[in-house]
Amino acid sequence: MRLVTYSSANLGGPRIGAMTEEGLVDLTEACGVTSMRAFLEDGLQAKAQTHVDGAREFVSDYRLDLPIADPGRIFCIGVNYMNRNEEYKDGQAAPTNPSVFMRGPLSFVPHGRDLVIPPESEQLDYEGEIVLVIGRPGRRISKAKALDHVAGLTIMNEGTIRDWVRHAKFNVTQGKNFDRTGGLGPWIETDLSGIDVTNMTVETRVNGEVRQSDTTASMAFPFAKIIEYLSTFTTLQIGDVIATGTPTGAGARFDPPIWLKQGDVVEVSVEGVGTLVNGVINEA
Amino acid sequence: MRLVTYSSANLGGPRIGAMTEEGLVDLTEACGVTSMRAFLEDGLQAKAQTHVDGAREFVSDYRLDLPIADPGRIFCIGVNYMNRNEEYKDGQAAPTNPSVFMRGPLSFVPHGRDLVIPPESEQLDYEGEIVLVIGRPGRRISKAKALDHVAGLTIMNEGTIRDWVRHAKFNVTQGKNFDRTGGLGPWIETDLSGIDVTNMTVETRVNGEVRQSDTTASMAFPFAKIIEYLSTFTTLQIGDVIATGTPTGAGARFDPPIWLKQGDVVEVSVEGVGTLVNGVINEA
Repeated sequence: MRLVTYSSANLGGPRIGAMTEEGLVDLTEACGVTSMRAFLEDGLQAKAQTHVDGAREFVSDYRLDLPIADPGRIFCIGVNYMNRNEEYKDGQAAPTNPSVFMRGPLSFVPHGRDLVIPPESEQLDYEGEIVLVIGRPGRRISKAKALDHVAGLTIMNEGTIRDWVRHAKFNVTQGKNFDRTGGLGPWIETDLSGIDVTNMTVETRVNGEVRQSDTTASMAFPFAKIIEYLSTFTTLQIGDVIATGTPTGAGARFDPPIWLKQGDVVEVSVEGVGTLVNGVINEA
Repeated sequence: MRLVTYSSANLGGPRIGAMTEEGLVDLTEACGVTSMRAFLEDGLQAKAQTHVDGAREFVSDYRLDLPIADPGRIFCIGVNYMNRNEEYKDGQAAPTNPSVFMRGPLSFVPHGRDLVIPPESEQLDYEGEIVLVIGRPGRRISKAKALDHVAGLTIMNEGTIRDWVRHAKFNVTQGKNFDRTGGLGPWIETDLSGIDVTNMTVETRVNGEVRQSDTTASMAFPFAKIIEYLSTFTTLQIGDVIATGTPTGAGARFDPPIWLKQGDVVEVSVEGVGTLVNGVINEA
């Protein structure tokens, strides 16, 4: 099932639904909740599936919102794909633990909306990533049980203002939290039965040109390890979101660097999940 | 006014209230909201003050929660007090911009509750800090208008698991986000009329011994600059929380380091605001 959060001129919003081959099926009334977090907390997937299976009506007038409009924490893993560590050219050995930083929800736009280049920088860059959405809480989760805690997968363009990532003495928070510089969506794919999460592809294209393409087999820290690691220090909660790192090929690594510019279209495709598409505009 | 969030065996919770000389005045029914964020969003301070001024009943059975149980983003400023940069002994010049990282709400306990030493580390350390609570949204806020966006001040023990701060290639997220390692509270002081925010004291004591003591006059980045800087990259929102950095004297800087241990009591006192008190226990 492909779970979405959406708004509609007729029906208002935010509302939740499921994207099917035939169209968008509303789940708000059938499930009695208006937020994706509440949907996941109440464990309404089976009820939703029954409703979707019998659906004859589809919402034609909708605009997608962030798949979880009210996420918990948004954790992001840095430098996770093989060879990406070498991109840093800092002479350090490969890390023994994942790097972790956090983004706030304001830093994202939904599928179909434009990323925004702020007047403070010309260095908006893309980072295509596979995202885990937590559906079952837990602390000190073992790798063996890690995937049981995942409600589904979504897609992130973990958009970054590069010259603000190293803006201060340490940390990357600033360059990762400019409003509307990242994309998240289009939906949460809950059916992982056909996906090998240890070897699934993620690809980023700018104006149709492939810039990043790799599989999770290249990850230094696979999904299960990331969940084990994060849950060592904090109780993962339903609605927490984990971006699992980006392959080599971000614009910053070209010589000279290639930044996103107004009019560009960035697509991030994740095998078995879908494609996140965002345009790019200069801030008005 | 000293705004609190609390729970009560009789009344349930979370509820909001005001702490006065005579006792805790409930504001939940008078103001029609149950969360501090909703209280601030609805601008209910004047209504609350009127209710408090006429209050004759006080809640005797209460337990304080985090002053905002549902905070927005929790931004923390690193290395902000004069000389603290030198503590890092990394030979780098003083930073030109504030370092920024984020914590999640789970990493805090309220006033009166115990900080928790996890089994993964012996290095729980204190960091006393003054905290800004945002009460008016804004982007690209000038220093001149910055304090107009502050609803009030509270106090943080920005408790840290030191050996997890540099656990990976970059960032401090892990060591700053162990569950229940920090303290936040006891209340939000909204009356700043008697406080000189450019020269107010913050002091941290462990078992009564002063470990940190400084004033905001020592800050490399005063409150107004922090708000200006953060709001450059993101729209500050009502309910966002900003910890403004800690003075020299954390346990990590002693030789040998002095970590917190079970049975310790940590107090952080901020001039004009109050004192945050937390015990320390080993995780069961």
